[in-house]
Amino acid sequence: MGWFADNQWYVAAFAGEIGDGLLARTICGEPLVLYRSGDGPVTALSGLCAHRGFPLCEAPSRLVDGQIVCGYHGFTYAADGACVAVPGQTRIPSAARLTAYPVTERDGLVWVWIGDPAGAERSAPPRAPWLAEPGWTVVQGLEPLAARAGLLIDNLLDLSHETYLHGGHIGTPEVAETPISTEPGDDGVLRISRRMADAACPPFYAKSTGLSGRIVRWQDIEYFPPCLYTLHSRVAPTGALPGPDGSDPDGYHVEIVYAITPETEHSTHDFWAVARDFALDDEGVSTFLADANRTVVLQDVTALNALELSLQRHPGHRREVSIKIDTGGLAGRRMLARLGVDDPTVTP
Amino acid sequence: MGWFADNQWYVAAFAGEIGDGLLARTICGEPLVLYRSGDGPVTALSGLCAHRGFPLCEAPSRLVDGQIVCGYHGFTYAADGACVAVPGQTRIPSAARLTAYPVTERDGLVWVWIGDPAGAERSAPPRAPWLAEPGWTVVQGLEPLAARAGLLIDNLLDLSHETYLHGGHIGTPEVAETPISTEPGDDGVLRISRRMADAACPPFYAKSTGLSGRIVRWQDIEYFPPCLYTLHSRVAPTGALPGPDGSDPDGYHVEIVYAITPETEHSTHDFWAVARDFALDDEGVSTFLADANRTVVLQDVTALNALELSLQRHPGHRREVSIKIDTGGLAGRRMLARLGVDDPTVTP
Amino acid sequence: MGWFADNQWYVAAFAGEIGDGLLARTICGEPLVLYRSGDGPVTALSGLCAHRGFPLCEAPSRLVDGQIVCGYHGFTYAADGACVAVPGQTRIPSAARLTAYPVTERDGLVWVWIGDPAGAERSAPPRAPWLAEPGWTVVQGLEPLAARAGLLIDNLLDLSHETYLHGGHIGTPEVAETPISTEPGDDGVLRISRRMADAACPPFYAKSTGLSGRIVRWQDIEYFPPCLYTLHSRVAPTGALPGPDGSDPDGYHVEIVYAITPETEHSTHDFWAVARDFALDDEGVSTFLADANRTVVLQDVTALNALELSLQRHPGHRREVSIKIDTGGLAGRRMLARLGVDDPTVTP
Repeated sequence: MGWFADNQWYVAAFAGEIGDGLLARTICGEPLVLYRSGDGPVTALSGLCAHRGFPLCEAPSRLVDGQIVCGYHGFTYAADGACVAVPGQTRIPSAARLTAYPVTERDGLVWVWIGDPAGAERSAPPRAPWLAEPGWTVVQGLEPLAARAGLLIDNLLDLSHETYLHGGHIGTPEVAETPISTEPGDDGVLRISRRMADAACPPFYAKSTGLSGRIVRWQDIEYFPPCLYTLHSRVAPTGALPGPDGSDPDGYHVEIVYAITPETEHSTHDFWAVARDFALDDEGVSTFLADANRTVVLQDVTALNALELSLQRHPGHRREVSIKIDTGGLAGRRMLARLGVDDPTVTP
Repeated sequence: MGWFADNQWYVAAFAGEIGDGLLARTICGEPLVLYRSGDGPVTALSGLCAHRGFPLCEAPSRLVDGQIVCGYHGFTYAADGACVAVPGQTRIPSAARLTAYPVTERDGLVWVWIGDPAGAERSAPPRAPWLAEPGWTVVQGLEPLAARAGLLIDNLLDLSHETYLHGGHIGTPEVAETPISTEPGDDGVLRISRRMADAACPPFYAKSTGLSGRIVRWQDIEYFPPCLYTLHSRVAPTGALPGPDGSDPDGYHVEIVYAITPETEHSTHDFWAVARDFALDDEGVSTFLADANRTVVLQDVTALNALELSLQRHPGHRREVSIKIDTGGLAGRRMLARLGVDDPTVTP
Repeated sequence: MGWFADNQWYVAAFAGEIGDGLLARTICGEPLVLYRSGDGPVTALSGLCAHRGFPLCEAPSRLVDGQIVCGYHGFTYAADGACVAVPGQTRIPSAARLTAYPVTERDGLVWVWIGDPAGAERSAPPRAPWLAEPGWTVVQGLEPLAARAGLLIDNLLDLSHETYLHGGHIGTPEVAETPISTEPGDDGVLRISRRMADAACPPFYAKSTGLSGRIVRWQDIEYFPPCLYTLHSRVAPTGALPGPDGSDPDGYHVEIVYAITPETEHSTHDFWAVARDFALDDEGVSTFLADANRTVVLQDVTALNALELSLQRHPGHRREVSIKIDTGGLAGRRMLARLGVDDPTVTP
């Protein structure tokens, strides 16, 4: 056991983060270096030179003609990780190579496979199609979280905290009051639903949709352990439901996506995105939703950083009492345990 | 053994520090949250929510109608630690409660009992009556010390250091030169006396009393392990002694009080107070004594922080040679050892 | 094994660093305090008071009449480490003494012996005569390095990195391309030579000598483990060689000296000096060489600090592949291993 699930796809970056420079990113404790060759595919290699371990993302390491040249002694690597030049000799030791990580770029996300590369061929990362599909407008960001990944997963699987931590932004009393339904996730996907038939409309939705007054608010979570969390959010005037054929002219749909990628045992890459199917070209709405969601993310980051610090300072004082709101989070922990991931309450 | 004495009263705060907000304070490694209900008594509860361990002193945790509402999921606690509300259900699990610490408020100090609560009923904290009694004027403060508590106890029990570390403030050559007498402390109180019949008057006393020239200077320590240190200080013109009936019209009396409360193994709450029985309404004297004593406390803090760092960096280089000035400090260490506290030279 | 070689001379300071104040310096994890009595010899004593371990370099500790007075309780020490005064009594415990470290001041360097003092009499530190001899002009400096000493030794024994890390300053393509010869060091000195018959002249030499065009460039390293590294550097116009009698009117000679003194397991004192036998009185050349070499040293410091951090963060990711350029560095590691020093790849 431990805090990292091996043999899994993780989001390493948004597609737009990777260009013709070297991007360093540590994932599940492994140092990676990422770059893109021209308009071509993304390359993900282990980030320490095979010679003396110099970090390939540290200047003066650099990319020359699509190959990484180590800034310390000039070991040069091709995109498949093979060393193609060393100083002072033409023979290149066969051991001089970097690990090449399987990469999948899809839905505007760059996924890397952590574990035995053979497994990557038998598995595909889960989808978040709204992030790169016509009919949706997206705002997104990445926040560093100084807390173990499990705390963020707990957080996202129990949205009752919106009422308290995010009151005035996305939380209203109805969120904490409305019971959830949880599907056990036997198919590898955890589904948690909270459907509010008559709720106050928080500023996040009032300002972006123009709705005023009471609303129908649905929160339908699909979590694909370990990395991808999607929240299908639907708001509409009270009483307005989708038609029997699935048409939903009165509903506003927001797809809220989090990719929860462990950086180290005690830090996490908190990727977030908000896709909407309304006001597609309205930059004011885009700016508002980007600011509002980032504010909410930072409220979580502040709280979870404090919780992480407290857990580290007071390891013996961690007790938990679970209630109905925790059904979803506990189900998530059980699914993670089957992947070899310990509870965030256990210090590995 | 270890560095914390269990089943003891510790000063958690000055009475005036605690109002209608939540005060976080870690004592002997335990995170507490303190508040006062109106003009009523002080409540001291364990500071981490029973649900998921969120720190109850972190915003947006807050006090609502005398009850703590956790800022993460809204668990709500009464002053006895019982949980009175949780989100999404009316049934409250019996395990959802905070530890309530016994509290005694006396002499302007808020004491909490660390250990088995039953012991609190069989024991009362020691007294420092001058801090809240007519006939005395008090200045006080609290400094964070980044050093193990034992280093501050060593420091206070051997005042010969005044000559070197506090020269020009409270130290004169006579302090280091004058022998001390030490009572073994069989009654649980350690008494150390240094009585100088003819000493220079340091600025601390010259400026506050108006005395000039040589003085009689008595330093009579009473230390109540582990937490309370009192120094009965008497200065008077040379030759002026108390009468046989205890009357002392020529003497100036200053009661210097320290409460030494371990925060963590390597940090300490350094509470200090200076009470005087002269110039009671002279604000100039109050300001001077507050500034002067804080300066002295900060000299100790700076020195002990450096000593702590050195002990941590060079654990193998800790050797001690003790001389007569250390008789008091060594007696203090023996008394602490009987309470289960290791020497500050031992890293637990 | 471990990362410090015991029973060795180490450079503690440049001679000019030590005056009539107390200089604190930690060497191989041992805290020392150094000072000079008037124009006399340098004294090196253990830096923690024998009484309660207070750091003798921390104010208000100070030097009074050539004796250290501890700032905490006034223990006073003579230059041989003997305690000569304690507070409150005339008898001085015989255990109250500081360790006096053997000191040798030579070539502008202050060497201290770490280990059994008896060994110091059977051994002399290696020489770097150019630093204090007529006919040479010297610039020098000391940079703190937040990395284990072995990484700097690796760095200096493999100068092929000049081409990559110091390109535009001292590196040109020929350095990495030209093979080295390594003498095994059976006499306790490791000799590594790289002689370039036709090389570009890097700015470091072009601006200091006035040479332009192609040059002969010799790099002859003599490393005296564990501490002293000397690089005999000769540049001259292409084709200009020393005469059979050793005369070398066309050559410019630069003696580059590094003293690599471990501070702690993960930090190092990086002493550097550059001595030249030309333009002796040209302050412009001195300023240029001081700036240029410091720039190069800081490039190493930045790179090695990053490498150290990476080694600490990713201990399991340290792999090494060695090639011909590493012959010198690996020979150095073998010599250090015979002195009891582990490879920098091993975390002690």
